[in-house]
Amino acid sequence: MIKKINHVGVAVKSIDAAVKFYEALGLKVDHVEEVPSQKVKTAFISVGGTNIELLEATSADSPIARYLEKNREGIHHICYETDDVASELDRLKKAEIPLINETPVPGAHDMLVAFVHPKGAGGVLTELAQYKKG
Amino acid sequence: MIKKINHVGVAVKSIDAAVKFYEALGLKVDHVEEVPSQKVKTAFISVGGTNIELLEATSADSPIARYLEKNREGIHHICYETDDVASELDRLKKAEIPLINETPVPGAHDMLVAFVHPKGAGGVLTELAQYKKG
Repeated sequence: MIKKINHVGVAVKSIDAAVKFYEALGLKVDHVEEVPSQKVKTAFISVGGTNIELLEATSADSPIARYLEKNREGIHHICYETDDVASELDRLKKAEIPLINETPVPGAHDMLVAFVHPKGAGGVLTELAQYKKG
Repeated sequence: MIKKINHVGVAVKSIDAAVKFYEALGLKVDHVEEVPSQKVKTAFISVGGTNIELLEATSADSPIARYLEKNREGIHHICYETDDVASELDRLKKAEIPLINETPVPGAHDMLVAFVHPKGAGGVLTELAQYKKG
């Protein structure tokens, strides 16, 4: 079952520059994490039960660097938190929604994640994530 | 003070088509509203304390129709809920963040709203909204 929006991912050229806006709103960065497998640095800003995740490329061949070659800075994806990514994927497959990941893969924050293709989700790159059990 | 993300706005060609994805995830449309001043039909999908707001143009000169002439379907804006939009705008003005609305204006759901320019907000079209008092 989908429990909540875990985070909204925002692709930025510079986390340091983008943070100034959120600080002007009185919001703060709670957590910074580098995800080497994605060649990305992330900064999480907690907002009333969900998070803004700022994403900055750490390499020219990072998915975020490639995204910013084709697109302006801005919202990159929405991540829904569920208790079971695999069962969500099963439901989406039955509805013939195109997926990027057919099975869950390891993500940031020690979560299992899977991405749905934007063409099956009204243009929105959609991530499904669950905290690992135990 | 910013309390939460009230909604994430998603520009779509057809609400009926986009809803199929959210229904496949087990989510449901709670509320449909036409906003004649914006020439837009909106559908709200509640997700754990926040909402996805699907936005469909009702006229060729709707801001959403113009957005979809230049952009693909996808995430259009983030709306933060605050108890006082005017004081947030004052803080942003002091930080020299460019605004679309210098003062709050009436929005959907009987809220007062103001938009921050994406160029001041890491590329994200950002809405601030408060429920009217009394």
